[in-house]
Amino acid sequence: MSSLGSALWTPQHGGIAAPLGFSASGISAGLKPSGKPDLALLLAPYGAVCAGMFTQSVVRASCVDLCIERLKKTSGKARAVLINSGQANACTGERGLMDSLQATNALAELLNLNSEEVLICSTGVIGKIIPMDNLLKGLEPLLKSLDQRDGSDAAHAILTTDLITKQIAFESVLGNRKVKIGGMAKGSGMIHPNMATMLAFLTCDAGVPEAIWSEMIKKAANSSFNAITVDGDTSTNDSFIAFAAGEALEEKFYDSLQIGLQQITEYLAKSIVRDGEGANCLFQVHILGAENNTSAMKIAKLICSSPLVKTAIHGADPNWGRIAAAAGRAGIIFDPNKLSIWIGPYKLVENGLPLDFNYNEVVLYMKNKFNNLTDYLSIKISIGFGKGEAISWGCDLSKEYITINADYTT
Amino acid sequence: MSSLGSALWTPQHGGIAAPLGFSASGISAGLKPSGKPDLALLLAPYGAVCAGMFTQSVVRASCVDLCIERLKKTSGKARAVLINSGQANACTGERGLMDSLQATNALAELLNLNSEEVLICSTGVIGKIIPMDNLLKGLEPLLKSLDQRDGSDAAHAILTTDLITKQIAFESVLGNRKVKIGGMAKGSGMIHPNMATMLAFLTCDAGVPEAIWSEMIKKAANSSFNAITVDGDTSTNDSFIAFAAGEALEEKFYDSLQIGLQQITEYLAKSIVRDGEGANCLFQVHILGAENNTSAMKIAKLICSSPLVKTAIHGADPNWGRIAAAAGRAGIIFDPNKLSIWIGPYKLVENGLPLDFNYNEVVLYMKNKFNNLTDYLSIKISIGFGKGEAISWGCDLSKEYITINADYTT
Repeated sequence: MSSLGSALWTPQHGGIAAPLGFSASGISAGLKPSGKPDLALLLAPYGAVCAGMFTQSVVRASCVDLCIERLKKTSGKARAVLINSGQANACTGERGLMDSLQATNALAELLNLNSEEVLICSTGVIGKIIPMDNLLKGLEPLLKSLDQRDGSDAAHAILTTDLITKQIAFESVLGNRKVKIGGMAKGSGMIHPNMATMLAFLTCDAGVPEAIWSEMIKKAANSSFNAITVDGDTSTNDSFIAFAAGEALEEKFYDSLQIGLQQITEYLAKSIVRDGEGANCLFQVHILGAENNTSAMKIAKLICSSPLVKTAIHGADPNWGRIAAAAGRAGIIFDPNKLSIWIGPYKLVENGLPLDFNYNEVVLYMKNKFNNLTDYLSIKISIGFGKGEAISWGCDLSKEYITINADYTT
Repeated sequence: MSSLGSALWTPQHGGIAAPLGFSASGISAGLKPSGKPDLALLLAPYGAVCAGMFTQSVVRASCVDLCIERLKKTSGKARAVLINSGQANACTGERGLMDSLQATNALAELLNLNSEEVLICSTGVIGKIIPMDNLLKGLEPLLKSLDQRDGSDAAHAILTTDLITKQIAFESVLGNRKVKIGGMAKGSGMIHPNMATMLAFLTCDAGVPEAIWSEMIKKAANSSFNAITVDGDTSTNDSFIAFAAGEALEEKFYDSLQIGLQQITEYLAKSIVRDGEGANCLFQVHILGAENNTSAMKIAKLICSSPLVKTAIHGADPNWGRIAAAAGRAGIIFDPNKLSIWIGPYKLVENGLPLDFNYNEVVLYMKNKFNNLTDYLSIKISIGFGKGEAISWGCDLSKEYITINADYTT
């Protein structure tokens, strides 16, 4: 839990393109009616291994099926990802699949790659078909604008209702060499990742065998993307794709790399929540004393999803009863007489009973502007004496969420 | 599914007190700061059998534990239920339990009953203790105002953030006699019943053996109270208590009685949703073609809980993509290529592909005022060729929900 506090990995510029050998680009290809950037490319160097995690939804886009199939067939030998925003290309049937195939085939030809080494991710409105003429015309300009240092254009082009880009890079010295990891993500609505997230991409310029890389990525995703929720709605297109390419990393540094991976995925996951539709406040729920980490995570995520907890946080109301009620309905058995609840530094409940806390002080704490990623409203709950614990992140539920989702088709 | 269309049971006045031998009352005992009615009593005749279903939450009020224990110990031989609103008496520890015991003991003495025949339900703010002096002083006036015909006062006194009372009675001629069933409920927030509902009460003036009555009640609750959701939050106090007392009903009429029980519980459940916090619209989700009814109900309830579906309905937006996405994440495997979706009479999706529907017409349909219980916005989804089906009810998510829950401690 606290292993992330280490200063081993320091923030860097460049995002997804920061690691050696990776390049990225983003352009306006005319897919979005607004004219905003809508087509991105991420290119990995020769020899890259790629791990992917995808939505568990039964109703998923054909591009997700295509990614899963290709990664399986090539044992993670992907080299490029094409990403379009504006159309999710989900519920588009045979036509949607043909479009995904055509787009990746065309890109593979331009890049002189095997088409199975090219992946595609789509995000946007469900049921909408990609304007293929525009996409195909956009491929050459997209290649020409590939940037080896800065992934910002790509980070822009993958957004939909997001207000800000989500990208970061970290660097660490492992032995006698520098290793960089970079990442970008998009989120906003339909965020309740199940085994994966919305769209998130990660690059690393150290070589790691495919099987180990997959395990590392899964582990990092479980405590980051799988620990967040905006609205409880899992998307049809959730994808997290991570590349590693470069000089092989010595095995003794795997743990250090894992720390970096957790750091970068946690940063991106929190960025998604912080920029959740209508969100004003990022909050963290830390469950302690559970029988195991899985039970703890189940309770933590349920509290983060509760509309009553989310509205209480929006109203700066220390309504611990709603927190206790949400904890109780997570399907995990615990003794309510061992329940303790803190909001920020304030202990409100001990052994299942309310303490005589200073209401106004807690309200004042809750009214702080929790609007950056290191600063969040903290809720801590101890449910017993077990060693299981978990941290999950959520955002408040505001009237803007209703406006965004009731007034526009998104 | 369609068995409820029968005109066998006709609506009656009197609510919970309509059935022969039952009486009810409600008064202002000074439990709520507002001075509104806050104490209710339901009295069943000698020989009544009682079935109860209660919240599955681990964090539940001590009054729930008390009801469960007493019903078990007496094999359903309860005679009276005391109901207070204003304080949930949950998370109040030993003190809360002592208060429940004291209240029921005092009432049992006044009624000349064994204290194990008296139940108690509490609803209101979690962590708040009942002002016991006021409650105890209220018992005599409560007894004096018992009404053998009209349960309206009781239906008023159990409300919290509800805007309207929820009560109904039905009558049917079974053989050579009339049978009446009556019911009342309260709901509003924290509504996502799991094996039970908020507070709901039912009376019936036909005698049915305890074991059969319990089964009938469970069956009725599963297709009514367990099929609704307002905000996905299961309460600490959910209770559904049902009495049957009177001349024994012939076995051949059990099926007819079951139809009446489904009708009355469905009415009360829909009333709760219709009066959900901030709700403007009642909608029904009907899942067809699932492998079994349980899978169908899982998908139906998930769609009713989805914030993105709820906001789309609020905005009269025929955003079927959100419905498809919600169906896909319910954890039930189905073939998305067999998915069909209707909103009202309009078919929007067939075999997983969007149809070319008249957008404006569907919007117009969705803009209807669905504000009574026989009129609801209808969503129908077929996921395959199985025989499993289920119906669930939900309400839209509006800015008023945020106002109600962010601005006040409820």
